[in-house]
Amino acid sequence: MMQDETLEEWLERADRDYLAHISLDCVVFGFHAGQLKILLLKMKHEDRRALPGGFVMKCETLEEAAIRTLKERTGVENVFLQQFCVFSDPLRSDPDHRADDLRKIGIDAGRAKWFAQRFISVGFYALVEFSCVVPRPDFLSDTCDWHNLDERGPLILDHDRILEAALNTLQSQLNYQPVGYNLLPRKFTLPELQKLYEAILGKSLDRRNFQRKIFSYGILRSLDEKRTGVAHKAPYLYSFDLRKYQKALKLGLQGGW
Amino acid sequence: MMQDETLEEWLERADRDYLAHISLDCVVFGFHAGQLKILLLKMKHEDRRALPGGFVMKCETLEEAAIRTLKERTGVENVFLQQFCVFSDPLRSDPDHRADDLRKIGIDAGRAKWFAQRFISVGFYALVEFSCVVPRPDFLSDTCDWHNLDERGPLILDHDRILEAALNTLQSQLNYQPVGYNLLPRKFTLPELQKLYEAILGKSLDRRNFQRKIFSYGILRSLDEKRTGVAHKAPYLYSFDLRKYQKALKLGLQGGW
Repeated sequence: MMQDETLEEWLERADRDYLAHISLDCVVFGFHAGQLKILLLKMKHEDRRALPGGFVMKCETLEEAAIRTLKERTGVENVFLQQFCVFSDPLRSDPDHRADDLRKIGIDAGRAKWFAQRFISVGFYALVEFSCVVPRPDFLSDTCDWHNLDERGPLILDHDRILEAALNTLQSQLNYQPVGYNLLPRKFTLPELQKLYEAILGKSLDRRNFQRKIFSYGILRSLDEKRTGVAHKAPYLYSFDLRKYQKALKLGLQGGW
Repeated sequence: MMQDETLEEWLERADRDYLAHISLDCVVFGFHAGQLKILLLKMKHEDRRALPGGFVMKCETLEEAAIRTLKERTGVENVFLQQFCVFSDPLRSDPDHRADDLRKIGIDAGRAKWFAQRFISVGFYALVEFSCVVPRPDFLSDTCDWHNLDERGPLILDHDRILEAALNTLQSQLNYQPVGYNLLPRKFTLPELQKLYEAILGKSLDRRNFQRKIFSYGILRSLDEKRTGVAHKAPYLYSFDLRKYQKALKLGLQGGW
């Protein structure tokens, strides 16, 4: 949607500008204070939260539509974005429920026909560096903010299923995609890197095994610099050697976690 | 399409029965005589071959549509089928070219409007056991048969790109999906299994390393039975221990090839 456009104005042109039957939903992952987080919107007059989602313009690729949607609906730009699964259950959205929602904000069913059609939704996951993002809700939403993965409450439609599938994908692609590079700040400590892996895998890892494995890939660059302002013994900072990281990912980082 | 239905009859009802803008294409992999093979159709009056593809009925999931499409267009049933990527370049199909094709078989552009719309195509890959499949073309196609991956000639539309993406997916999922189980006959020799891995990865593997690794997973069951009718020293037969295979895949088979 354009800025300053009302939902009614958007609905007027939806049929003309967007491909029918195809939507997309984005699972935006961030990492902060040892927790894996996701970005959720809360629509006005809806108790449950939602993944940021949108539609595909007639001239766009899916990837372009996902980038535009994220920017318009959450303010998030320049992120690692990857399609992972298409959700196509004919019963995945409930047109009556959607019509109810729209009535609550003063739009009658006749004008909201766009939302009554069946949508097949392409799931994307995005990896963003938490500290670089200032989420900003669009005019449809009350809030757009980060939630801990395990404290999010139920989501609308099949968004819980989409989120779960995104997390499974992230787990299985941990050794094939630059997950750490995209979720961590440029400089990080080994305990922070380990916490990230633990948050994604949902289990504790042995510190010594973790360090042995991660060093064996040769993808970390030691910075000869320490984290300051911490209570305990100051840990060293590292960054990824992006060239070596990309090369290692191409083969797949070997060894399970 | 129904059996006995003409393309013209099908076009009459396409708008009513199928979701606009969404298609699917299937890359069907088989393995025979040490070669990775794919199933291709040749349409009447078209020189280039095509992946078997189709559309999504208004009541179907994508997976149901892919199963139905494969059965209708190639006769292939009961296969391992997995979506892997959506292809959404707005220029991926050329409506004029498609209209030309249809004119060649006596259908004018007005009746073929269905094919003039933009389609986003969901790519599926299928793994089938070569010896269990008797490919059978549908009424639109002259032929439906197996081709060696590297001797296939150029395909229509963006099908070469879809095929390449499917092969990349197969390579990266070799340790996460039951690839061997679905492509090999129930009983196989170690050299056959190695040839399969080599065909997928596109490179030679060291025999001793390969055997050491594959045995280390504990997923093979030795059958105390030999391949008969071979010229050289008869090799032992193996089968997969499916329970152990599934369990090992859940963790990911460790170690690169």
